[in-house]
Amino acid sequence: MKIPSLVLKQLYTYGSLENRPDGVVFGLKNRLSDAVVTAIEEITIDKKAVPLDALEFRLGDETFSPADVSADNPIELPLAKIMTVVWRGESLEVGKHTIGIGFDSKPFGRLSFSVKDSIRETKEERVKVPYDREDDYGSEIISRRQDFAHSFAGVDFENVSSYSFDPAVTKGNIESFVGVAQVPIGLAGPIKVNGEYAQGEFLVPLATTEGTLVASYNRGIKVLNLSGGVTCTVSDDRMQRAPVFVFASAREAREFRDWVTEHMDGITQAAEATSKVAKLLDIDIFLASRFAYLRFNYATGDAAGQNMVGRATFAACSWMLDNLDNVERFYLESNLATDKKHSQINIMRTRGKRVIAEAVVSRDVLVQHMRVEPESLQYHSQISNVGSFLSGANNNGAHSPNGITAMFIATGQDVANVAESSSAILYTELTPDGDLYMSLTIPSLIVATFGGGTGLPTQRECLELMGCVGRNKVKKLAEIIAGVALAGEVSLGSAISSLDWVSSHEKYGRNR
Amino acid sequence: MKIPSLVLKQLYTYGSLENRPDGVVFGLKNRLSDAVVTAIEEITIDKKAVPLDALEFRLGDETFSPADVSADNPIELPLAKIMTVVWRGESLEVGKHTIGIGFDSKPFGRLSFSVKDSIRETKEERVKVPYDREDDYGSEIISRRQDFAHSFAGVDFENVSSYSFDPAVTKGNIESFVGVAQVPIGLAGPIKVNGEYAQGEFLVPLATTEGTLVASYNRGIKVLNLSGGVTCTVSDDRMQRAPVFVFASAREAREFRDWVTEHMDGITQAAEATSKVAKLLDIDIFLASRFAYLRFNYATGDAAGQNMVGRATFAACSWMLDNLDNVERFYLESNLATDKKHSQINIMRTRGKRVIAEAVVSRDVLVQHMRVEPESLQYHSQISNVGSFLSGANNNGAHSPNGITAMFIATGQDVANVAESSSAILYTELTPDGDLYMSLTIPSLIVATFGGGTGLPTQRECLELMGCVGRNKVKKLAEIIAGVALAGEVSLGSAISSLDWVSSHEKYGRNR
Amino acid sequence: MKIPSLVLKQLYTYGSLENRPDGVVFGLKNRLSDAVVTAIEEITIDKKAVPLDALEFRLGDETFSPADVSADNPIELPLAKIMTVVWRGESLEVGKHTIGIGFDSKPFGRLSFSVKDSIRETKEERVKVPYDREDDYGSEIISRRQDFAHSFAGVDFENVSSYSFDPAVTKGNIESFVGVAQVPIGLAGPIKVNGEYAQGEFLVPLATTEGTLVASYNRGIKVLNLSGGVTCTVSDDRMQRAPVFVFASAREAREFRDWVTEHMDGITQAAEATSKVAKLLDIDIFLASRFAYLRFNYATGDAAGQNMVGRATFAACSWMLDNLDNVERFYLESNLATDKKHSQINIMRTRGKRVIAEAVVSRDVLVQHMRVEPESLQYHSQISNVGSFLSGANNNGAHSPNGITAMFIATGQDVANVAESSSAILYTELTPDGDLYMSLTIPSLIVATFGGGTGLPTQRECLELMGCVGRNKVKKLAEIIAGVALAGEVSLGSAISSLDWVSSHEKYGRNR
Amino acid sequence: MKIPSLVLKQLYTYGSLENRPDGVVFGLKNRLSDAVVTAIEEITIDKKAVPLDALEFRLGDETFSPADVSADNPIELPLAKIMTVVWRGESLEVGKHTIGIGFDSKPFGRLSFSVKDSIRETKEERVKVPYDREDDYGSEIISRRQDFAHSFAGVDFENVSSYSFDPAVTKGNIESFVGVAQVPIGLAGPIKVNGEYAQGEFLVPLATTEGTLVASYNRGIKVLNLSGGVTCTVSDDRMQRAPVFVFASAREAREFRDWVTEHMDGITQAAEATSKVAKLLDIDIFLASRFAYLRFNYATGDAAGQNMVGRATFAACSWMLDNLDNVERFYLESNLATDKKHSQINIMRTRGKRVIAEAVVSRDVLVQHMRVEPESLQYHSQISNVGSFLSGANNNGAHSPNGITAMFIATGQDVANVAESSSAILYTELTPDGDLYMSLTIPSLIVATFGGGTGLPTQRECLELMGCVGRNKVKKLAEIIAGVALAGEVSLGSAISSLDWVSSHEKYGRNR
Repeated sequence: MKIPSLVLKQLYTYGSLENRPDGVVFGLKNRLSDAVVTAIEEITIDKKAVPLDALEFRLGDETFSPADVSADNPIELPLAKIMTVVWRGESLEVGKHTIGIGFDSKPFGRLSFSVKDSIRETKEERVKVPYDREDDYGSEIISRRQDFAHSFAGVDFENVSSYSFDPAVTKGNIESFVGVAQVPIGLAGPIKVNGEYAQGEFLVPLATTEGTLVASYNRGIKVLNLSGGVTCTVSDDRMQRAPVFVFASAREAREFRDWVTEHMDGITQAAEATSKVAKLLDIDIFLASRFAYLRFNYATGDAAGQNMVGRATFAACSWMLDNLDNVERFYLESNLATDKKHSQINIMRTRGKRVIAEAVVSRDVLVQHMRVEPESLQYHSQISNVGSFLSGANNNGAHSPNGITAMFIATGQDVANVAESSSAILYTELTPDGDLYMSLTIPSLIVATFGGGTGLPTQRECLELMGCVGRNKVKKLAEIIAGVALAGEVSLGSAISSLDWVSSHEKYGRNR
Repeated sequence: MKIPSLVLKQLYTYGSLENRPDGVVFGLKNRLSDAVVTAIEEITIDKKAVPLDALEFRLGDETFSPADVSADNPIELPLAKIMTVVWRGESLEVGKHTIGIGFDSKPFGRLSFSVKDSIRETKEERVKVPYDREDDYGSEIISRRQDFAHSFAGVDFENVSSYSFDPAVTKGNIESFVGVAQVPIGLAGPIKVNGEYAQGEFLVPLATTEGTLVASYNRGIKVLNLSGGVTCTVSDDRMQRAPVFVFASAREAREFRDWVTEHMDGITQAAEATSKVAKLLDIDIFLASRFAYLRFNYATGDAAGQNMVGRATFAACSWMLDNLDNVERFYLESNLATDKKHSQINIMRTRGKRVIAEAVVSRDVLVQHMRVEPESLQYHSQISNVGSFLSGANNNGAHSPNGITAMFIATGQDVANVAESSSAILYTELTPDGDLYMSLTIPSLIVATFGGGTGLPTQRECLELMGCVGRNKVKKLAEIIAGVALAGEVSLGSAISSLDWVSSHEKYGRNR
Repeated sequence: MKIPSLVLKQLYTYGSLENRPDGVVFGLKNRLSDAVVTAIEEITIDKKAVPLDALEFRLGDETFSPADVSADNPIELPLAKIMTVVWRGESLEVGKHTIGIGFDSKPFGRLSFSVKDSIRETKEERVKVPYDREDDYGSEIISRRQDFAHSFAGVDFENVSSYSFDPAVTKGNIESFVGVAQVPIGLAGPIKVNGEYAQGEFLVPLATTEGTLVASYNRGIKVLNLSGGVTCTVSDDRMQRAPVFVFASAREAREFRDWVTEHMDGITQAAEATSKVAKLLDIDIFLASRFAYLRFNYATGDAAGQNMVGRATFAACSWMLDNLDNVERFYLESNLATDKKHSQINIMRTRGKRVIAEAVVSRDVLVQHMRVEPESLQYHSQISNVGSFLSGANNNGAHSPNGITAMFIATGQDVANVAESSSAILYTELTPDGDLYMSLTIPSLIVATFGGGTGLPTQRECLELMGCVGRNKVKKLAEIIAGVALAGEVSLGSAISSLDWVSSHEKYGRNR
Repeated sequence: MKIPSLVLKQLYTYGSLENRPDGVVFGLKNRLSDAVVTAIEEITIDKKAVPLDALEFRLGDETFSPADVSADNPIELPLAKIMTVVWRGESLEVGKHTIGIGFDSKPFGRLSFSVKDSIRETKEERVKVPYDREDDYGSEIISRRQDFAHSFAGVDFENVSSYSFDPAVTKGNIESFVGVAQVPIGLAGPIKVNGEYAQGEFLVPLATTEGTLVASYNRGIKVLNLSGGVTCTVSDDRMQRAPVFVFASAREAREFRDWVTEHMDGITQAAEATSKVAKLLDIDIFLASRFAYLRFNYATGDAAGQNMVGRATFAACSWMLDNLDNVERFYLESNLATDKKHSQINIMRTRGKRVIAEAVVSRDVLVQHMRVEPESLQYHSQISNVGSFLSGANNNGAHSPNGITAMFIATGQDVANVAESSSAILYTELTPDGDLYMSLTIPSLIVATFGGGTGLPTQRECLELMGCVGRNKVKKLAEIIAGVALAGEVSLGSAISSLDWVSSHEKYGRNR
């Protein structure tokens, strides 16, 4: 298996080159997969070989020299481990240096590459938040950070410092941990969902600080339940990373497009080698000027998958760059992904899950419970369409991001994805019987039941509440969220249409 | 002071009409301002007068009859208080009823209006989350809800139920409170901000579950600090509500526009009577078909102000409706506000704060600390512009919603406003000296230091950390957030441009 | 070959049912391909058979009865011919009637279908422009129309009536022909184009009434020529029709998507049977609510192809409808095509030709001829990017539609396609040598060298001027247009940047 | 009256500096208003005074020396006249030179300024289209151009060279005139318009080469007429130019905004001094980064006004620049105007005329004449709304640009404005009686009845046909165009909804 050169260079930890008291040091990190080192062949600095006996390698608590390593006595280097390399007793001049590395390994065979790094002049002397290189999630360092905040800003983290779990569980979720935000959760529902994955009634955790939100969603849920529940359908599922390749001319960029089409096998193989989960579905290619923008579409299982597809795409691009000789520049992202942004491309081509919630809302229920006739709601929907066209809004409905955000916070989603997930298409239609067919299409709902914050304590409990913990649950969660979002449209749409909207804020809200 | 009729009718609590064991009841709520009732003149039901001696009024623990009330013996009815009216011993038929009410009051004088409400057939028998009419924020009812969740879904809210404050403080922020989401907070900074309101260094609380986010922002902050800090400017400040009026024809809608312009005094007076804070700045009017869309722009002080401007606009519209006779329909919102949505109108005309963060990032700092030359970042910025144009993205930068969302959660903002606040315009330019001028314009950053969740315990501590608690602090907060957002652009932009982007996720992220 | 039922029904000419003095008449038109009728089996009206001997058929000047037709004595019915059917001596009541038809034919075999049409109450008695059923392009009827215009509005068409060709050539291009608009043509260029199809220098015909336009483009052309010419690349070519299918639910719509993917062979065969030129490339499918929007992408040779793809898609959809039983509604267009509209989908996915014009504009030439330095143009381009983002413009350049429109009018294009063709992406970049790389990407340039107005006399001469008449020339034309468009960007961009913009309007323009 | 410095410098004709056989020459052009020169005080080149007796001035056929000019013997210099200045017997070196000029004049007083221009090395020797400096619109030079085209490209302009007017009339409309495009005109209508300006029935000239277009619009007109005609309303009228000012920081840009607001009097005076027609209505200001974008809104009478507002804005900006000292850069346009582009800002804030056409289309007429029920059209409209939202289209209707373009070509409009004029909002609603209310809002219809091509022979006749020639007619024309556009929506909408769409193309179209 040939490793693409860009990926190979990432084995080196850029910025790690330093003069330390015991010598010149830098770091190597296994970003490929579990491996063993069977021989250390050479380390060069500025093209001159470092004497092998002046070298020392450190891995966790272990230390060894090149001579210790052989096929019979290999060094285990598991995925994500860092090996520190020390050239004992030496120091380098301030400025750039070229470092060459040659290893033998299993299963990758010979790994040989060179990179540039630099010795920085001076460390800046700025005030820094306390950090513990060994254990940054221990109670001591956390206390020191709280104290630092106190001395810096006079604040007492009485409540922030109150959490119910071992901070070590947040490793991989946060750096410089100092405590928690406690966001109130209200229970809405149960909501009756007729999904393919979510079937039955579900209690819904809404984490918010906006008075009336839970009550408003609850009213909508009541209307949906009394009308037979909400039917939810996930109609697409894909996550993206969108690199850009710059060529000398538009014509070369166009030829590259054909090249990509012809080399989908190699590209797919390189991409999928980085993960057991990510599957490359296809690549959308957009040409403009002398640039070729590639939007890689992946299936990512129960994870939201942004990091997963970043790695996979990087590997794929690295493979492509190894096999092309006319790329002038390359960037791994180009604003076509479009991560943490609303975009028309998301609306068209999906990002995350494309979910559609539908219900036939009963006229009687609307009239009795919401003081509104279906015709008024339908009229409001049409007039809002024109309003959305005028304003250039990314959502022609009332407020789907309210419910979505509250569920995102409660369940440990990447809440910044509200940017993408805020788009929606509300469509209403009077049925021949005088009821109101309503549907809400959310074209880019980004959710996970695995990875990210989904495993944190309160977040996991909220997922448990809906039976959405772990593998093969992500579409179930997407269905429930979409159903709740539609309930919110029923509720606020009715309130606006019946004119009691302001009054409902009065009843529950704090902001008098 | 004449009260507009729509506002007047809101004194009645719709949906409150019920047959209870002790008689027919309904509720009246003072939504105007502090007042006293000096005479109860008549209550009619279905146009027949209810005998005054069969009536009983309840206000808190007090009970009184119409005969008890007079100018000499007025009843205090403070703002937001509900008075329950009971027609003793009677019951009404299922269906619609018209209720007429006549009072004398101070300072409003005679208040007389009629409304329609209905007696519902049966209460639905669905499973409901426990609710306590008297005290829904006490420990007992909260326990009952937790138990309910347990019996309904088998979940133990071990962590969710762990919070460090008296739940009563969440009144007005949440309904059906059951516990809290604990979202980890990491400390970034201190960041050096050269604002008009924020001047100096600020520690930044980031509440997120996304690994590497804090570290990434921190790197960007370091670069900004080493380059002299970030200069932030709030250039606009306005909050909206956008009602729509439907007329018989486009020509009538156009005449209405002129009428509005001529009656701005009356409209402003009606709007501003509802709040001590809200100031009506101006009204943008958009005509399409036979609809007149009005976008009311307000200053709202330190509150985000969505509810405040909703009430003010409702009062203004109610006044307008009282003075017009050709409005066919009216809705208080029309998707031109555009609450909880990205929109082009927000980008152009501001929603919340329009903030611009600027910095001249030093070439040397970029090269030494981010391994990237200004030219590469600048090139990426240009290529991303084309990418954004192709994708129709609402942000041509890298990921400003990441930092914004984390600060929103930490400080008790309405996080769903990430929808609006996700828009941004990144602009970069090489200076003659080879440094990189960068600016990030956030056209619709919606923030508050008063109201909403800003007073909750952990949220308030996070605001304290930045010296942003309370009145006259909201622009300071906006400046800090914008500065942090720019730091994130420096960091991710550099990472993409230097190709170590994926590797930084590896270093800190959980999702391996 | 089975003919889809919707297509079959189109053999009947809707709206043609009439009571005439000689009996009941209606029309049948061959819209399939050349055919002969070998037997007339039955005509029913309102489910009752019309006696065959009461029927008369008229085709051009010929008249025949059912008994005259047999396999040995077939009736030729060429493509696009209309056969009038007469039920002698009868009349029908006002209102709807069902007409059943049964034929035998070659090569289609038995053609049997029924349709509904109606007898209208009264013909409206409105003033009508004169029309000649037999020959509507003869000089007499044209004179009558001119006289009609004179008597109706007092206008003398002295100039409108002056044209240099036989009006019969406009058949298929215009109805109710009354004369011509004479649009002045100016010559620009020659422009040096380095295309794949257009290679060399080309004189450019610009039909416009806007003073300074030709001069401005000419200045830009001079700059491009002095810089070595403009390189043009057609990177995509596709024309669309976008029908929508309505289902009972989102889930059925999603299943339909899979069905389409599985039945691409049948769909393609049905579509391509309607034309020798149109090739179905692929179908983009977009799901929202319970709707499936299909965007059919075709190659259409040298024609713009809107009609061609309309017919092909109609046949394909008709085939699909014959093979599906759960479609609730069907419309042949749904605003995803997006004919005669700018759209983001065009920018992304191309409509017509996607052409990119590139040039490295020499610094010296810019300075000497345009009084502007590359840096100023580049700065303007960046500042205009931000401006476009603020305004939500569909073009971040200066004025490409000016040149495109002038060439469209001159060469007989469908000028309304300026709506689509107005989008463009301007990208500029300083080269290491201090020159200016400029590119203009036009994502939806809709052009033809065959069909539409391209064969009309002046239009054809203008195409001849550029060597773009007839087959296999359309990409050549696209390249020249794109080159000219870039010249306009150079010219106006420079004028704005050098501040002499207004003065250039003064020099040539009329509007003083 | 103080003349702003930028405007002053435009008196010099840049690029006109040349060594000619008789000496150094350059041109001065009066771009202010009618004036007389009362003294020539000094001409300097490279800061050295040119001896006054070596100078010669040429104005038309006249020649005079500085000594000839005095207050008693002034030289008339009417608006738009060019005065050539000759320094007899001298020549300048290749390269840049500074030219200083000092005059006395009436009514402007002393005019004194200096500019830079350059002597170019060599004239390029490229093939050029023949040009006659004296009379470029005479038959001889036109013939020479036609011959040139023949010899260059082998084309005979038999038809292009056929026109019915004296080419001199095209002066100010075209440069390098070589003939005309003859675009067929068909008559549609008469259409019954219930406008404020257009009242009654109007025959409509449609210049197009697209078969079926006239017939289709005619069908729609019939339906509208039978339903009582179309009601049209111009609800706004404004034309823009949008300069941008660059400052050192966002804060300075914000201060500039306030400065503009405070100096509206001076700005307005400077702007309106340039035209008798243009009135500055207001200025929209948009801030981003360190840029202030100003969108000047003008009323421009019967002209479309793009040039008029360009001049006015240039004068205003020049005045502003004279009164400010911190502007770093200035460009007269910034893509916020947005000339020749679709944009969201046009949809919101109008460009040209905002016109709304409305009709209540009778159910019976639809069913009888279009074979379609109102419900089906209405359904299609709703489904197309969703389609437009998905595609990001600038028009949710069917094809309004078709009719608009055909009328633009016929009546001498600036056809490239189809880019802006292609936007439209279609809104349909079933009335309680079962008829169909339809409205089409065209937010940026750019039309003129004065200036541009409106005075050319065929174009003028077409305007006469509708009684729209000359002053105070532009809103009438806008109303008629909007009415016709709505007719097209009725027609194509019905065709799609009734499925006979393809067949109508078959009936009339050429593209079989």
